[in-house]
Amino acid sequence: MTALDGFDPGFDIPALPGMTEAEIQTPCLILDLDALEANIRKLGDFARAHGMRHRAHGKMHKSVDVLKLQMDLGGAVGVCCQKVSEAEVFARAGIPDILLSNQVTDPAKIDRLARLPKFGAQVTVCVDDLANVAALSAAVQRHGTTLDCFVELDVGAARCGVAGPNAVVALAQAIDAAPGLRFAGLQAYQGAMQHLELHADRKAKADAAIALVRQVVDALTAAGLPPGLVSGAGTGSYPFETASGVYDELQCGSYAFMDADYGRIRDADGQRIDQAQWQNALFVLTTVMSHPLPGRAVCDAGLKAMTAESGLPLVHGRSDVTYTGFSDEHGTLSDPTGALRINDRLRLVPGHCDPTCNLHDWYVGMRNGKVECVWPVSARGKMF
Amino acid sequence: MTALDGFDPGFDIPALPGMTEAEIQTPCLILDLDALEANIRKLGDFARAHGMRHRAHGKMHKSVDVLKLQMDLGGAVGVCCQKVSEAEVFARAGIPDILLSNQVTDPAKIDRLARLPKFGAQVTVCVDDLANVAALSAAVQRHGTTLDCFVELDVGAARCGVAGPNAVVALAQAIDAAPGLRFAGLQAYQGAMQHLELHADRKAKADAAIALVRQVVDALTAAGLPPGLVSGAGTGSYPFETASGVYDELQCGSYAFMDADYGRIRDADGQRIDQAQWQNALFVLTTVMSHPLPGRAVCDAGLKAMTAESGLPLVHGRSDVTYTGFSDEHGTLSDPTGALRINDRLRLVPGHCDPTCNLHDWYVGMRNGKVECVWPVSARGKMF
Repeated sequence: MTALDGFDPGFDIPALPGMTEAEIQTPCLILDLDALEANIRKLGDFARAHGMRHRAHGKMHKSVDVLKLQMDLGGAVGVCCQKVSEAEVFARAGIPDILLSNQVTDPAKIDRLARLPKFGAQVTVCVDDLANVAALSAAVQRHGTTLDCFVELDVGAARCGVAGPNAVVALAQAIDAAPGLRFAGLQAYQGAMQHLELHADRKAKADAAIALVRQVVDALTAAGLPPGLVSGAGTGSYPFETASGVYDELQCGSYAFMDADYGRIRDADGQRIDQAQWQNALFVLTTVMSHPLPGRAVCDAGLKAMTAESGLPLVHGRSDVTYTGFSDEHGTLSDPTGALRINDRLRLVPGHCDPTCNLHDWYVGMRNGKVECVWPVSARGKMF
Repeated sequence: MTALDGFDPGFDIPALPGMTEAEIQTPCLILDLDALEANIRKLGDFARAHGMRHRAHGKMHKSVDVLKLQMDLGGAVGVCCQKVSEAEVFARAGIPDILLSNQVTDPAKIDRLARLPKFGAQVTVCVDDLANVAALSAAVQRHGTTLDCFVELDVGAARCGVAGPNAVVALAQAIDAAPGLRFAGLQAYQGAMQHLELHADRKAKADAAIALVRQVVDALTAAGLPPGLVSGAGTGSYPFETASGVYDELQCGSYAFMDADYGRIRDADGQRIDQAQWQNALFVLTTVMSHPLPGRAVCDAGLKAMTAESGLPLVHGRSDVTYTGFSDEHGTLSDPTGALRINDRLRLVPGHCDPTCNLHDWYVGMRNGKVECVWPVSARGKMF
């Protein structure tokens, strides 16, 4: 009998509380709870010190447990998420304030969205299309609920959102006139600049976004519809929005976990943010499962355990071993000094935390070398 | 009341039988059942005509239902898969012959593997390490079961597997001597060449692999341990292994669904295989959910609905619209003629079928414009 007898075939929880790292089934997501809590407290302290609301982005972790930590330790006011089915998970968990930072246009999804306030949450959705305002209003009237609406402004990401003051004012007026809807503010998130390496490059994009937001706020105010909240900002930009005087709410997500791609960006002093500001709290734990030749090993974490669009993962705390290539279920490792043995464990820092977390069903929380908790990835796969 | 009233909040099946494509919740996986069945019959006919066994690769679709179609319509003898937890899904579903085409070295997973034959399946596992032979033997003795073992030979993919005849013979002898294990054959899959565009380039790699396999078979035969089966071959190579006279078993997977990356490779006549041989049976159905500017639209399928390592998806059946960029939950579309409207549906051919299927919980099977079946992605997320 071993410590692993807790696992039965088909029992796909990777770990049980009290286990050591060597006993965990891999590949799986590991959270360093000390690092996670430090990151959460740090952003919470920053927001509080600067009078900003922080609405934690749940699309990153998809976890009710992580969100509750962000609310309890970091003072987050609620959650934002990207999909109605994600919002349902947070609403069922009793989260009181939910922003769907995205458009909802499909009739089936509008119907689900309009029923969401029945769970007791204050629900806000983004709008960038006039016909959508009418569809949302009809749905909430059908269900006897109400929705807050943010108008989404494209502040440079060239994705969703209308282009400027006139379109924003027209939408705000339509929302204001629509039964069951309330014009609650502006969604102004510049997603395309968050990962630019240099602080000056990010600042230039943020400055342009902020200038546009100011114009739009002025136009809304002139039209008698000043936005209640201006919301936006990510891990790569939040100091800019905070200093702007025009944003009210931060939507940071990745700061809590960090990843290899965000870690590379530089702060105002030229330091990598994963060294100067945020600790790596998220890892993909992997096991060496083949070592056919000196210098080359193979681990059990590939494209089904991490996504590849932001590059290769980093091997945490090891300068002697490099992850050199993805296959579907394998990672190839360069091991020039021959340090690795079959069944050795490695902690990988994934390239991109959001879609990587979405591949897994569980977070294994560790502290002082032991498993402390096992949390579900509550909204894993919720894409409707 | 609408046809969509079948959906309740939290009810995350994307479709119900009888629905049209416009009623399906997106993003989700669509299977064109006519195309799927045609692909399955075609490979089955080929294998039968050439006296080859076909063991369908379940790591691609992770679906008991698709596998049963491959067995019923295509004569597949069973399944191969890459993880113990996948093998458990197929064993519980009654699949009689399961090859774990991978190494299993972690003690917890060896324990699960050794219990698998109790489900009634014949189970085979790959080995490339002597110490692993002893660990597998100890586990099956503990559980009163037996395992077949293939020795894995590296035929050019530079991943798992030993390098040549001496190492293979040493492992075969160790397996032959180990209580509870049976030396059953060779795993000789050249994974690194399957996606090379040119037929001549793939053939050169396959010829090298086949030459090495011949040497190894000769060495094993000389040692009194001729391999029962030589197994390998993928969608990009199976004609070569079939013609070799030394392989017994094909392990093709992607042929059944096709994807954009495989579709680009050329057959002996220089034709794309997604035009000359295999039909696209797998699609990610997506909905246009924002159209902020003329020429640019945004759909609801991004990196959490498809993986990006093999490039952008193709928009099926539309030459006027192009998918130009991934975000986590969005895809940017170029729409130069202004053809798209909000809530339009598009079928995307994903770059890489295996990790894309693993993101989803359901396949929606369609025929003649209607949903015919909804199948679970039975082994979705099974990575242990």
